Amino acid sequence: MNDLALAVFAAETGTHLVEEPRERRFERFRRAFDGDRYLAALGARELRFLGRSAPDFPSRLRELHDPPPGLFLRGAEEPELLSRHAVSIVGARACSSYGAQVARLLGRELAAAGLVVVSGLARGVDGEAHRGALEAGGATVAVLGCGVDRDYPAGHAQLARRICETGLVVSEYAPGVEPAPWRFPARNRIIAGLAAATVIVEARERSGALITADFALEAGREVFAVPGEITSALSVGTNALLRLGATPLTCAEDVLEHFGIAPAPASAVELGEHAAAVLAALAEEPAGADELGRQTGLDAAALATALAELELAGAVAEADGLYRGVRPPE
Amino acid sequence: MNDLALAVFAAETGTHLVEEPRERRFERFRRAFDGDRYLAALGARELRFLGRSAPDFPSRLRELHDPPPGLFLRGAEEPELLSRHAVSIVGARACSSYGAQVARLLGRELAAAGLVVVSGLARGVDGEAHRGALEAGGATVAVLGCGVDRDYPAGHAQLARRICETGLVVSEYAPGVEPAPWRFPARNRIIAGLAAATVIVEARERSGALITADFALEAGREVFAVPGEITSALSVGTNALLRLGATPLTCAEDVLEHFGIAPAPASAVELGEHAAAVLAALAEEPAGADELGRQTGLDAAALATALAELELAGAVAEADGLYRGVRPPE
Repeated sequence: MNDLALAVFAAETGTHLVEEPRERRFERFRRAFDGDRYLAALGARELRFLGRSAPDFPSRLRELHDPPPGLFLRGAEEPELLSRHAVSIVGARACSSYGAQVARLLGRELAAAGLVVVSGLARGVDGEAHRGALEAGGATVAVLGCGVDRDYPAGHAQLARRICETGLVVSEYAPGVEPAPWRFPARNRIIAGLAAATVIVEARERSGALITADFALEAGREVFAVPGEITSALSVGTNALLRLGATPLTCAEDVLEHFGIAPAPASAVELGEHAAAVLAALAEEPAGADELGRQTGLDAAALATALAELELAGAVAEADGLYRGVRPPE
Repeated sequence: MNDLALAVFAAETGTHLVEEPRERRFERFRRAFDGDRYLAALGARELRFLGRSAPDFPSRLRELHDPPPGLFLRGAEEPELLSRHAVSIVGARACSSYGAQVARLLGRELAAAGLVVVSGLARGVDGEAHRGALEAGGATVAVLGCGVDRDYPAGHAQLARRICETGLVVSEYAPGVEPAPWRFPARNRIIAGLAAATVIVEARERSGALITADFALEAGREVFAVPGEITSALSVGTNALLRLGATPLTCAEDVLEHFGIAPAPASAVELGEHAAAVLAALAEEPAGADELGRQTGLDAAALATALAELELAGAVAEADGLYRGVRPPE
């Protein structure tokens, strides 16, 4: 109950606490705090609390030099989910179509191989990583910088609900705590702490994702950075991580290898002749429909059919009218 | 004269020789060979020979375990050029617009800072690296896999002539030797050998540029790889090099740092308001003119003026109707 009292006291005083403060104010709060009643109220809202003294508190998080007093949980899964093999996937909110597509692909392939995908529910890379994991029917965990009863960002309320069906939305902050900029770096230590490896998909020169990478390194976890074009501002942070010694991520297998997991067998999708031609045309650079028509000689209807087939097979993704092969051809 | 005899014997017998063969055929050839006359004939064609025993033969090349008997030279520069600080820039022939633009940019910036840019005169990355160096008024050296009197590839005859005005076209093969596939890997060891650092801009999974990288590593030289999108077949080789420990190249300064050279002061180009807006719109992703018009609100004429200004300033490059900022904004 001490863990819970500390967590709720932090929420009520608007402070970030990982140790019991030597304050008379906290002593008074603890004596008055009715933990059973608080837990009952949480339960009535289908929320739970997992204190850091609990046996099923994830040991990876307990290893941090400043583990949170506990995690508030929302969602269908048991706390044991937080102790399974997990990878964090994070990156820019205003990511490029490349970043979005890679995050989605990694979320999908890593979840399909059995890893829990941890991220921060933010717009851009985070959201795509969660969506990819859900598409694969895998488990994903969203770590918030506010109470788990808040849908933040608001545009991801529906995504949070979907995550709760097969995974967890967690936070060290008690329900009711509002998002605040200073909470996000602290939240990032939990994202890094829950996973044995952290993947940075896209990051500007100064970016919250780089803070997550720092936390991961500090905790002795593996950091992967996705290479990107050196002419893109959104890859300045990730390419700089590579210069600092982060492991280049070239495909989902690079992460699986770190976990000693064999990749899931590739879905044996047989592509039609037209689709194969379009995929070959996209092997080197993204292209618009006009350009693809010229390169393949397909008419508009045949091209549209081929593109739909490729998008369904997860082999091609579209953004801003530009189609991109989401993996190099074998 | 022994160096020259060996080089000419290799040419006439169609073999690749780095040591004097213990053959009676070679003994007979050497006795009959009139070196002075051969050199006079070379000179009449404005070609020269630099034997590996000559004092101005580049010591970096002499260090190789299989240095060529010598180099045939075509061009205005003294052989001393081959002993100056040099960087090799190589990559895919069928490169993407990204690869072409980065090769051009690196050639320009590294030559402007005083490095000799070495490459192989091939289509794609090689040609762009040479062109960039020429644009900067710098020195560049093309290493051929055939005689220096051959313009190979034919489409680069004009480029070879421009290189000869301020630099050198060199080959270990005597004039008259035809290009042959088996000569290109041997040529690549000279490209790597002439430089203290080799940059691979774009490379497919199996690519001649990777052979150059192997030679550079074998000779104890630095290897830089330019990160690219993991969804591009043309970056599979370069990203794989990063996984193997090559140094990620994020800007020309990364190479200059290796040489202990301060970067050339950035040309203080003042961009107009429209040009600055277009550059900002291109910070994250390449875009076509329509998309740029939507993003900046500029009409077609103002947009065209801004793009021309940016291309002249070397800040934006165009390929296949797609504009790309060739360096991240400061």
